[in-house]
Amino acid sequence: MRITIIGLGLIGGSAALAWKQAHAEGRFPGGSLSITAVDTNPATLSLALERGIADRVTPSIAEGVLDADLVLLAVPVLAMGAVMKEVDRAAPVDAVITDAGSVRGSVITAVRMNARPERIRHYVPLHPIAGAEKAGLEFATPTLYRGATGVVTPLPESDLEDVALVVDLWRAAGLTVVEMTPEEHDRIYAMVSHVPHMIAFALMDMAVSSPESRTALAAAGGGFRDTTRIAAADARMWADITRANRTAILDGISRFEAALTHLKGLVAADDYEGYRTYFERTAEARREINSSLPPVQAGKSGGDAGKD
Amino acid sequence: MRITIIGLGLIGGSAALAWKQAHAEGRFPGGSLSITAVDTNPATLSLALERGIADRVTPSIAEGVLDADLVLLAVPVLAMGAVMKEVDRAAPVDAVITDAGSVRGSVITAVRMNARPERIRHYVPLHPIAGAEKAGLEFATPTLYRGATGVVTPLPESDLEDVALVVDLWRAAGLTVVEMTPEEHDRIYAMVSHVPHMIAFALMDMAVSSPESRTALAAAGGGFRDTTRIAAADARMWADITRANRTAILDGISRFEAALTHLKGLVAADDYEGYRTYFERTAEARREINSSLPPVQAGKSGGDAGKD
Repeated sequence: MRITIIGLGLIGGSAALAWKQAHAEGRFPGGSLSITAVDTNPATLSLALERGIADRVTPSIAEGVLDADLVLLAVPVLAMGAVMKEVDRAAPVDAVITDAGSVRGSVITAVRMNARPERIRHYVPLHPIAGAEKAGLEFATPTLYRGATGVVTPLPESDLEDVALVVDLWRAAGLTVVEMTPEEHDRIYAMVSHVPHMIAFALMDMAVSSPESRTALAAAGGGFRDTTRIAAADARMWADITRANRTAILDGISRFEAALTHLKGLVAADDYEGYRTYFERTAEARREINSSLPPVQAGKSGGDAGKD
Repeated sequence: MRITIIGLGLIGGSAALAWKQAHAEGRFPGGSLSITAVDTNPATLSLALERGIADRVTPSIAEGVLDADLVLLAVPVLAMGAVMKEVDRAAPVDAVITDAGSVRGSVITAVRMNARPERIRHYVPLHPIAGAEKAGLEFATPTLYRGATGVVTPLPESDLEDVALVVDLWRAAGLTVVEMTPEEHDRIYAMVSHVPHMIAFALMDMAVSSPESRTALAAAGGGFRDTTRIAAADARMWADITRANRTAILDGISRFEAALTHLKGLVAADDYEGYRTYFERTAEARREINSSLPPVQAGKSGGDAGKD
C-alpha cells in the first residue's frame, strides 16, 4: 500500500512511524508499505528521509499523491480545503482520503467544497485524540497513538470498505476507535478539549495580568501546573481550531460560565453545604472516569502543551 | 526535640516521616527527635505506631502537647481555632506553634482568638504547598515535600528564632521556603490554587451535566485529564478552604471570569488575530514558568486529586 502523508508534523510523522513499526512487526493491515511525505518545509523532508520516516519526499502535493492508494491530510484545519483542492486534481480517483483534523463539521465542509463529488465516497474523516508537548516532526514517535482514542465520523456516502481500512490502519497505529456523527464529535470535543483549552488560556491570562504575577507564578504548585499545562499549546493551531469549531466552542464556554456562576453564587452566599455538595458531586465524577483517561506519558510530564 | 503533630493525615504524617528520615541521616536541625501524634481516629494512631511514624500516640490534645517543644497543627483549616484552644490550655507556654493550613488570614485570626496573647510570639504559620492524589495517613510519604515550596507568613509579634527554627525544620523535610504577608499569601493562593480548583470543579460540573456526558467523558484525552485532575480533591477539605478564603476566592473568580469574557468576546466576533494573539501571549507565559513548577511525581500521575 502506498500512503501519502500531507503535512509531516507531529501527527503525520507519528502516524508514519507507527505504521512503519506495525509493518516491521507484521501487523500492518495494508500489505506492503511505502510512505510518501509532502511538506512545505525542506528541512522536514530531509529529516524524514534521514530517519527513514518516509520512503519518498516531495514539496509538491500533485507529485506526492500521483500514485497514492491512501492520502492522509495532516495539515492545520483551516488549510484542509486548499490542500484537498490540490489532492483532488492529482490523486487517483479511487484513492482513499482521510484527515486527522481536530474539528469535523467545518473540515468536512471544506473537503466537500474542494473535491469532486465522486471522491466523497472514498473520504473517511478520523480524528486521533493525541498530542504532545511539542509540535513538529522532531517530536514524532511511533508510540504517540498507543492507548489513545480515535473518533471516526463516516459520511452518509462513505464506502464501508474504505471506512474499515482507515479504522484498521489507525488501530495498527495504536488507537482505540469509536464512531460518532460529525456534529456529536464537534460538540463533545468543544466540551472536553477546546473549552478546557480556552479556560487554561484564560487562567494564565488572569495570572499574568495580576500585579503579583511574578510571586504568584513562582509559588504555584502541582495543581496550577496541571490545570494550565495545555495553555502552552501552539497558539496558531488553536486559533485555527477555534475558528473551525467556533459555534460549539462559544456554546461550551457559555455552559461552563453557567456552571461557574452557580458555584460562585453558592460561595458568595457562603452556603457551605451547597458548595460542599457541589464539590462532592464533581469530585466523585472525576474519580469515576480516572481509569478511562489516557495515562500521563513519559516526556509529557514536563507540563507543556498538548493538542488533545 | 519533642514534636507533637495534631492531625495525622497526609500532611502531618508526611512531615513526621520526612523529619524521621532527616534525623536518621543526621540532617535534623532540632537535635534529638521524638514525635507524638494526636488524632481522633484510633486506626490512624495504630497505623502510626505500627509504621514507626510516631513514637507516642494519643487521642487527647491535652496529653499530647503536655511536654511539647513544638506543636504542628495539621487539621482542617476550619478546625484550627478549636484545636488551638485546647493546645493553649495544655502546652508549655514557650512551645513553638506552627500550622500547615492552606489559608492564612482566617486561620491566624482563629489562632489569635483562641490563644493567650503571650503565645502569639511563638506562633509561626508556614504553609507547605504540597498535596497528593489521596488524603489520609496511608498515603503519607517522606518525599511529599521534596522540591515543593513552603510559604512562611510571620506575624509582627513572631519571635525570630522561632521563625528560623520552623523554617529550618521544613527545609529539612524538603521545602524551599519563601516569605509573604498573610494577605499576599491568601490572594496569591486564591489565584494559583483555590480558583483553579473552583474552575476544575465547574468544568466537571459542565461535563457531567451534559446529555452527552457519558460519550464525552469516555472520549476525553490528556488535556481533560490534566485540567480536571484536581477536581477529584477531597470535597470537605475544599469546602473548608473555600469558607476560610472566601473573599479572595470570590475576587479571583471574578478576575478569571473577566479574562474568559474577554476571550469569549474575541471568539464571538471571530477576531482571529485577536484570539491568536491572546493564545500566543498566554502560551508564552505558560512555557516561561514551566521549569519553575514542581515536577509530576510518580504516583501522582494517575490524575487524582491534589490539595495544592
